[in-house]
Amino acid sequence: MKRNLLMVAGPTEIEDDVLAYGARPLVYNRTPEFSEHILKIEKGLQELFVTKNRVFILTSSGTGAMETAVVNLLSSGDKVLVVDAGTFGHRWFEIADAYGVECDVIKVPQGISVDPELIRSRITEDIKAVFVTANETSVGITIDLKKIGLLVKDTNAVLVVDAVSSLGSDPLETDNWFCDVVITSTQKALALPPGLSFITVSDKAWSLVEKSTLPKYYFNLKEYRANMLRGQTPFTPAISLLFQLGKRLEKLHEIGLTETISIQRKKSLYLRKGCERLGLSVIGDSPSNGVVGIKVPEHLDAFEVVQILRKEHGVEIAPSPGEDKHKVIRIGMFGAIDLSDIDKLLNVLEGVLSEAM
Amino acid sequence: MKRNLLMVAGPTEIEDDVLAYGARPLVYNRTPEFSEHILKIEKGLQELFVTKNRVFILTSSGTGAMETAVVNLLSSGDKVLVVDAGTFGHRWFEIADAYGVECDVIKVPQGISVDPELIRSRITEDIKAVFVTANETSVGITIDLKKIGLLVKDTNAVLVVDAVSSLGSDPLETDNWFCDVVITSTQKALALPPGLSFITVSDKAWSLVEKSTLPKYYFNLKEYRANMLRGQTPFTPAISLLFQLGKRLEKLHEIGLTETISIQRKKSLYLRKGCERLGLSVIGDSPSNGVVGIKVPEHLDAFEVVQILRKEHGVEIAPSPGEDKHKVIRIGMFGAIDLSDIDKLLNVLEGVLSEAM
Repeated sequence: MKRNLLMVAGPTEIEDDVLAYGARPLVYNRTPEFSEHILKIEKGLQELFVTKNRVFILTSSGTGAMETAVVNLLSSGDKVLVVDAGTFGHRWFEIADAYGVECDVIKVPQGISVDPELIRSRITEDIKAVFVTANETSVGITIDLKKIGLLVKDTNAVLVVDAVSSLGSDPLETDNWFCDVVITSTQKALALPPGLSFITVSDKAWSLVEKSTLPKYYFNLKEYRANMLRGQTPFTPAISLLFQLGKRLEKLHEIGLTETISIQRKKSLYLRKGCERLGLSVIGDSPSNGVVGIKVPEHLDAFEVVQILRKEHGVEIAPSPGEDKHKVIRIGMFGAIDLSDIDKLLNVLEGVLSEAM
Repeated sequence: MKRNLLMVAGPTEIEDDVLAYGARPLVYNRTPEFSEHILKIEKGLQELFVTKNRVFILTSSGTGAMETAVVNLLSSGDKVLVVDAGTFGHRWFEIADAYGVECDVIKVPQGISVDPELIRSRITEDIKAVFVTANETSVGITIDLKKIGLLVKDTNAVLVVDAVSSLGSDPLETDNWFCDVVITSTQKALALPPGLSFITVSDKAWSLVEKSTLPKYYFNLKEYRANMLRGQTPFTPAISLLFQLGKRLEKLHEIGLTETISIQRKKSLYLRKGCERLGLSVIGDSPSNGVVGIKVPEHLDAFEVVQILRKEHGVEIAPSPGEDKHKVIRIGMFGAIDLSDIDKLLNVLEGVLSEAM
């Protein structure tokens, strides 16, 4: 298969030394040594999530972790509040709806960051949980999670955060910001192959887990917690991906989370400035560090631009999912890409723009 | 982490050239080239399953594929028949029960292969599905799947087969044996890292999928089928594991399924004979090619034997899960081990036995 430079919103370019761990011969997972490995990984994940709560390891994509949140927190007939600012906010609704959970949906126009006060005003007595998307990957827009956390904290509801394209790229402090449940996966800011996802659960949220009656088995958090006490998972995990994760978290620890996020910020600012220089408008007033959404000029077809870049220039970027496919391109800043890669992309974009003039 | 020779019932020793694919830089999965890769993999899987039906690729352990079968075939209040001959047969019951499905359970004593006629006699008009385990991994006992398939075929029920520790090791012909749904995962006979699982569904079973009302999202087969039409998965799959799978299926195709199973058979026969020579009794009258269950002599503790082998001799075998932990050891014949590895194991076992005399 032809290899293009990955500047999509995941999967990402991966550092060689981390990648190499994917070819390590396996070890048996039901051993004290492997338990130690898992517990060390959990510590690294707690550092990434900025939490003292347990972090559970699932073998699934990020959507599996989203479903884990829904089926473990709720019971049939429960009512929740969902912020839908795009494809991934909408996914919270789809999952909850599939399980018979009643959803009050705040539909946010594309490119707009939800007003925290609007969320607060919609949390009625019977709302069990508020589902938000830290960075709406379909367009690259972040929310004021710190403020939302403070507002939800004083209600009976728990705050559930999809941080798939955010954690490790935009600032997010799970405990300090009163985020009760946070989920993420490996193929974005962690810059690892997809296949693992993670979920952390506060005490406030765990009291809902205790009462939840929605059916579940593979994603049953009580089983994950019971196993995690001794550094194990209820079902065979993706062992080789855990090798890579262990190495990646070690490196993250060495660099530090603050510096890691600062590098991400620098890269996305560099890209955004370059785009503005080319006359391309970055979407929204709260763009994320990880995914930059760009409106292409009227005379261009965004989907076509993506095709030209991948076929003629060896660079992989993504169109917007859904209706904006022909208007918006998305550029991922995750993983082992640096400013020179961004220069390359900008050069290519400049060429495509001028050719189309 | 210390590396022991893997002779457990998965994970396994992996061939170097297959393993190497786990360290390949990633590609973007939403491209025509990746779709081609997925469709090629599906073809290889159809060869492995001996089926013309579609095979769907899940990012989960084998248990995720089991849950996929349950939640896609059934509706709340449905009645099913479950054959429970050990830990993994019991898991069918646990999953169905978690979703409010009524289970008639045939409990089979350890080491016994279920009588197909007993299954037939328990299939009443209202039984929607029969859940069986092709090889009960907890003890290494196979069933007469060919006969069971023929008997279930003429009823309204569909036959659902957990072939996790069987497919690619023991003979199993999905279509010819009228197995409606078959699931497996990567870390047994496929000798790949864990993290992917597979499910194939017959037309008879698909008519149940159309009617199923159990809640699901991540494991919703209708979404997997819609995506598979164009060589895609609904959610980001474990891309690096798919690279390895592609290579492995290529090699399997070259060797051929019959020869692959014959090699497995040869290895397990060699081990069983060796055990008998040492006075160790292999469990059951229908032992599998992939997992050999052995009763240790009365004066020995099976769990202790496992510890001695792993700590002192660098060989990883497994105790039986559950109550037989101190009486039974299990030896996996999957993956890149050969007769000389079995010789090594037998030598070590002989030493442990004589020391304990």
